[in-house]
Amino acid sequence: MNRNADPGEAEGTRIGGSEEFGMARFMDVHSGFTGMTPGQLRQAYELDLAIESTEGVHFERAWLDPESGKAFCLSSGPSKEAVLRVHDKAGHPTAEIYELLAEVE
Amino acid sequence: MNRNADPGEAEGTRIGGSEEFGMARFMDVHSGFTGMTPGQLRQAYELDLAIESTEGVHFERAWLDPESGKAFCLSSGPSKEAVLRVHDKAGHPTAEIYELLAEVE
Repeated sequence: MNRNADPGEAEGTRIGGSEEFGMARFMDVHSGFTGMTPGQLRQAYELDLAIESTEGVHFERAWLDPESGKAFCLSSGPSKEAVLRVHDKAGHPTAEIYELLAEVE
Repeated sequence: MNRNADPGEAEGTRIGGSEEFGMARFMDVHSGFTGMTPGQLRQAYELDLAIESTEGVHFERAWLDPESGKAFCLSSGPSKEAVLRVHDKAGHPTAEIYELLAEVE
């Protein structure tokens, strides 16, 4: 067992990014979605899902706060730029994206 | 079956907040964690888990981007203020918290 690859699995900690695994995880943040409905979030998300494979990206979940207009997307993919390209092509670009090097639960 | 309570379950959409269910979901964002290690994220998260029940809150997951110093926490609880109090008591307050009225996957 390669302890370096996943040293924290037993305690619910994931560690590592694209350099280690060739696939990284990302959280991106969208602003300006004030008043967006759940149905509109679903529609926007489906646009991402429809084209994500062209960039080797997979969107796992997305959340919406329609009061502040913020949306958050959790994804995995080869690079930050790949995630950005999917959102660009889907018509909802954002410059705010973070590579997640640790996750706990 | 109450379709209003969960109209989008079949298509992977969750809708609703504390007003509907007495329990809402939140994403909060921390800044200034530049260089934080996965172990330090785990330690901070354990502080939240240790006291979350005093506020009726449950933290589900947290993610860290040590390069930007951003951390994201996904939680459920009775109110935004309850989530904030847990983070305050745990020693890592943040003013940036969003109530999530929709989630898609």
